[in-house]
Parts: sequence; C-alpha cells; structure tokens
Amino acid sequence: MKTIKIKVEISARHIHLSQTDLEKIFGAGYVLKSIKDLSQEGEFAAEEKITLVGPKKQMELRVVGPVRPATQVELAYTDAFSLGIDAPLRLSGNVAGSAGAKIIGPAGEIDLAEGIIVAKRHLHINQEEADELGLKNDDLVRVKLEGERGLVFENVMVRIKPTFHISVHIDTDEANASGCGKVCSFGELILE
Amino acid sequence: MKTIKIKVEISARHIHLSQTDLEKIFGAGYVLKSIKDLSQEGEFAAEEKITLVGPKKQMELRVVGPVRPATQVELAYTDAFSLGIDAPLRLSGNVAGSAGAKIIGPAGEIDLAEGIIVAKRHLHINQEEADELGLKNDDLVRVKLEGERGLVFENVMVRIKPTFHISVHIDTDEANASGCGKVCSFGELILE
Repeated sequence: MKTIKIKVEISARHIHLSQTDLEKIFGAGYVLKSIKDLSQEGEFAAEEKITLVGPKKQMELRVVGPVRPATQVELAYTDAFSLGIDAPLRLSGNVAGSAGAKIIGPAGEIDLAEGIIVAKRHLHINQEEADELGLKNDDLVRVKLEGERGLVFENVMVRIKPTFHISVHIDTDEANASGCGKVCSFGELILE
Repeated sequence: MKTIKIKVEISARHIHLSQTDLEKIFGAGYVLKSIKDLSQEGEFAAEEKITLVGPKKQMELRVVGPVRPATQVELAYTDAFSLGIDAPLRLSGNVAGSAGAKIIGPAGEIDLAEGIIVAKRHLHINQEEADELGLKNDDLVRVKLEGERGLVFENVMVRIKPTFHISVHIDTDEANASGCGKVCSFGELILE
C-alpha cells in the first residue's frame, strides 16, 4: 500500500448566495465584504451572515463569496438534525430536489425551495497531479487521518480542476469524528 | 481479512449524576424517573434534563440514570466547541483533570470541577465473545461502517464486561461522519 501526504481542509456550515437572492435579503446592488480569503482560489469568507430558519430551530450562517449562479447551503448532519432540515448528501453544485428553508437577512427574506445539502467529501486535485497518480474525475479514493481518533474515509470523490491543489475536503462532523478539531494536520491519500 | 457483523450504538450528549450532585440540583432525596431503558443493561434515559453552561453558550442535556459514583458529562466535539468547553477525549470513567462547567437544575446549581469528556469510541463485548475472537481488554480494533459515507474507525478500544454484548459505541459526530444518521445499521468488526 502506497500513501501520499495531503492537506485536509474543513468546511463549517455556510451559504453561497446568488446575486438575486443576495439583493433580496441584503438590498439592491449589495456587494459582499471579504474578511478572509479561503484556500479555494477566488473564494472568501464574507463579513455577512444570514439566519437559516428550520422547523426545529434557527441558526446563523456565514456567507461565502463571491456570488454563484445558484444559492447553496452546506450543513453538517449535526446542524441539519438540530434545525430539523432533511438535507441530502450531495456533491457541491448538485442541488436539484435538495432541501429548502426560509433565509433571513437584514433587508428581507427568501423562501429557498432547494439548495440545502450536506457536502459529500471529496478530493481536490489538478489534472497534472491526477495524471501522476492515475486518478480520474469521479474516482473514489480512500483517505486516512492519523491520531487517537484515527479513521479511514472511504468513497472520497475525485474532483479535477485547473485551480485545485491536492487536498481532501471534509465537514465539521467528519473533522470531529477524526478528533482533529478545527485544524486537521495532514491526511494520507491511500493508493492501492 | 475476516469481518464480523456487529451492532452500532450511538450516544448523544448526556450527563450521569452522582447522588450528591443529583440532590444539589434537583432537591434532597430526589429520584430520577426512567422514560426509556437503554441498550446498556440497567441504564435508562431519565425524564430529567439539566443545563450545562459553557463560556460561549449553554445547552440542555438529558440525564442518564441510575446515579453513578461521580458526575460525568459526555459531549461530542461539535457540542464542546459550540459551548466553548475544552473537553478531552477519554474512556468513560476516566475523568481526572477533565473539563468543568456550571450545571443548573430546577432546584440548584453546581460548579462541576471535572467530569466533562468526549467519549473514546469502544467495543462492548463479554468474556466469552472476546475469547472466541481472541480479544483482550484494552485491545484496539477496527470497525467499518458501509455506505455512501462509509469509513473505517481505527483505535476502537475493547471493553470486556459480563453484561456486555458485542457492539461498537460511537458518538453523534462519528455517526454523522459515517452518514448513518440517528440509527446506524450494522457495522463490521475487522479481524486481521
């Protein structure tokens, strides 16, 4: 068994907004204010937060910019159960028929019909890196995290994009289950 | 590789109270009311709840009875981070030097000096079952959960007691990371 050390990126719950939805809840012509660049090229944590209203409770979510073609909410299952929202496990971008809920901002609110998902864990990688490792888009690989709560994630989906650098993306439930807390050190991609 | 199908038990955050602490926060001579027997022989979910007060927020916790020699709070890391409590990963019962916090009940409150932990995942098994599989107390084994979010937990500690039947015990972060939700189906104990 061959393994390769890779970076582990953890996503906490957040929302991506479409321009239309952004303006509905923050006001016409509103522009998001970046407070921190994220590891994914071009993305940033915005100063803005919204309130997601579930049947059981409501929760504040950080907006991640820039705006996208469609509004998408990414929750951990822990969040979804606590809100009472039946969010399906999906790859980012695949929101057809996913869960909906009310979203409230300082200037208005929307009834999001779909867009709420739990993100499927995935491996970011660019074409050169993928070629070197013999990986193709949508391949499923395994990633091991060491430690007292060490584990091996199966079914980590390979996503190839020119801007990516090899790293595994997991959510807070997955980070907490592996005991690596808010900042995981490195993981190992397992190559058979 | 040989595997054996085993039951998966999930623990949500909860508190075990000592008789002294029970009486301090629920009143002198108070007796817990069982609403549901738990899989662990003799244990029950009580009707009673308490409020755990962390530096960042407070949270309601279900009491698990019967009373124990020492008060112990079991949180998932997601809970601990949200409360702002620095709870260490420990086997149940090993609370020396663990985290503390204020606990409020209907008749009073206590400042718990230690007893707040994140429970280390473990395998319950009785001596006969352990002998059959060649397992000893404190052995570390691996358990696989199948599914779209399938994973393999490493470092699952073997705990032998006469009242146990073979089952793996994980918390809500671990259940959610494996995508099995509130009721996991079966897992597989991996025997080399």
